[in-house]
Amino acid sequence: MEDIRIGIVGHGFMGHEHENMLTKMEGFRVIGISDLDPKQLKDVKDGIKRYASNEELMQDPEVQVVLIAANNNRHHDLVIQAARAGKDIICEKPVAMNVEELDHMVSVVKECGVRFTVHHQRRLDRDFRIMKEIYDQRQLGEVYTLKNSLYGFNGNMHDWHVYISEGGGMLYDWGVHLLDQVLWMIQGAKVKTVFADLRNIINFEVDDYFKILMKLDNGITAEVELGTYFLTDKMHEKWFERHWIMGGNKGTAYVDGFEPQGKIVRTAHLLKNVDGKRTMTAAGPTRSFGPPAEGTILTEDIPAVSTCHEDYFENYKKAYFGREDFLVKIPETRRVLALMEAVRESARTGESVRFES
Amino acid sequence: MEDIRIGIVGHGFMGHEHENMLTKMEGFRVIGISDLDPKQLKDVKDGIKRYASNEELMQDPEVQVVLIAANNNRHHDLVIQAARAGKDIICEKPVAMNVEELDHMVSVVKECGVRFTVHHQRRLDRDFRIMKEIYDQRQLGEVYTLKNSLYGFNGNMHDWHVYISEGGGMLYDWGVHLLDQVLWMIQGAKVKTVFADLRNIINFEVDDYFKILMKLDNGITAEVELGTYFLTDKMHEKWFERHWIMGGNKGTAYVDGFEPQGKIVRTAHLLKNVDGKRTMTAAGPTRSFGPPAEGTILTEDIPAVSTCHEDYFENYKKAYFGREDFLVKIPETRRVLALMEAVRESARTGESVRFES
Repeated sequence: MEDIRIGIVGHGFMGHEHENMLTKMEGFRVIGISDLDPKQLKDVKDGIKRYASNEELMQDPEVQVVLIAANNNRHHDLVIQAARAGKDIICEKPVAMNVEELDHMVSVVKECGVRFTVHHQRRLDRDFRIMKEIYDQRQLGEVYTLKNSLYGFNGNMHDWHVYISEGGGMLYDWGVHLLDQVLWMIQGAKVKTVFADLRNIINFEVDDYFKILMKLDNGITAEVELGTYFLTDKMHEKWFERHWIMGGNKGTAYVDGFEPQGKIVRTAHLLKNVDGKRTMTAAGPTRSFGPPAEGTILTEDIPAVSTCHEDYFENYKKAYFGREDFLVKIPETRRVLALMEAVRESARTGESVRFES
Repeated sequence: MEDIRIGIVGHGFMGHEHENMLTKMEGFRVIGISDLDPKQLKDVKDGIKRYASNEELMQDPEVQVVLIAANNNRHHDLVIQAARAGKDIICEKPVAMNVEELDHMVSVVKECGVRFTVHHQRRLDRDFRIMKEIYDQRQLGEVYTLKNSLYGFNGNMHDWHVYISEGGGMLYDWGVHLLDQVLWMIQGAKVKTVFADLRNIINFEVDDYFKILMKLDNGITAEVELGTYFLTDKMHEKWFERHWIMGGNKGTAYVDGFEPQGKIVRTAHLLKNVDGKRTMTAAGPTRSFGPPAEGTILTEDIPAVSTCHEDYFENYKKAYFGREDFLVKIPETRRVLALMEAVRESARTGESVRFES
């Protein structure tokens, strides 16, 4: 099977990441990389072309697939340019600044008959896949709460992420992943309402804190929270990394860290519903809460999962040759964009927004 | 100064608590205790009258103040009965099942010219007073988030708390405290909107999990969360006790436990807003998050506070003799009841509820 020949647009952080991964993986060849800033092309690896304009990359007949890793506000124009050049397209997330942009992109992509997917590689994060496995296997009974969060100590953003006009802010950066994970995990369930807080605490222009509550029609209330300045000194908890909590009527599961650690937790026995009989003899200032007796809390290991970010491109290869569906489908990315618009509306009005109800 | 002569209605858990505390404190004398169930009166301390009916207690000329510690659904009738008997009144929380009941109670109390307050003793909890002190002293700059929470492993409720009709459920039990603390802490700020989840996860009738978000007009989004079956094995965190987190633009504070431990946490330096310059040279799969370098996270001790539940009755004594205001004012308890009604409405509709806007 021939290598898939890739052109990368943009040699910033993600452009470098893609260059590194795809030059190591079998089945891909990075033909060339473009960047509007010539300085960014200085460290392009030997054997890879350097294009001073995106036009050059788009017109290179050697390039089959354009991988777009430019600033968020450039995705719309670049996808359309690549489609019109007849190239298949992988676009970085968020695929567009809003639903309207995406709908226009999709109409051109369809017109041009090229294939189009988005790099939501965090569907392959280990922490997420562990929680998805627990959910899929219904290990917690009926789930009522799910929390997906990430905290930082740096406060500020970097690069073009500090500018609203370029698609900056943490909702576009990490928010799109955290929301995509939840939506992909609860496939089949609808998000009835969204209630969100979206702030710039430290940054001048862009959001750096959000808390998003979503009421789903399957009985789960899902929460996504991120803060770039939300601090603790509890280092043993991997606070400044990823966190998940999922609570059901048969137990709770938690996972902490990019290299996730966690447990499924249950109790040996519940308090009996004492049915009206008064139990004042149970001592202490509060009877329902307080440290559990030894042996009350039981734990089970979280499931092992096999996953890595390279799997995104392994799937791409198979899908490219028609042997699988693309992992990330455009209607899924549209749903995330629409959800982010609901988040912004809720944050602006202070009220919940009806979403899929 | 003469002792204040108290009659306690109801010898369940809180009736015993009051008996124990007031027989130890100077300035109070427990005259007698009533309970409709004669078995509950067996262990009334020597020297204290045992009334087989509330009527007897209300009509005892020795009793000056009636302390009502009956089931929640009985507060309305008992307060009115005590008022009509010309007694001053201390009622357990929640003062009533709803605002309508309270308004009726207040009209009778006014008509009878007696004094009326509510036992919101958790305004004197140490964990709460520490956070209130940090907030009052503006130690975190502009606060954007405040979370007040409590988790349990027992699952079920006990006693009459399992029945809706008697005012059971955790919102009436602990929720009223958690909400009262937040409202009392942010005095002067209004709650614009409320978005809430209220569930019975383990219990048949009554709520045992809630998450309540409140958007305040001072820029804070406050959250109250409680679950009787929300588990972890992180015992070092005192998970099954009280928790507070408050985040501002100058730091974060947390407190864990009934005997609270916590820190004020800040960072030595923030990431610079790099103003568009691309910083792809910063290594790693994510640049904004991950473990902080040694020395980045700075901590300060939480403030020491002097507080105990006896202070509720110390205040009562002073207020009784006109030297202070009652700590707990009826309009404050009305605000909490109204907020709980908004919580129930939001939970029922799945949408946010406008509150004081």
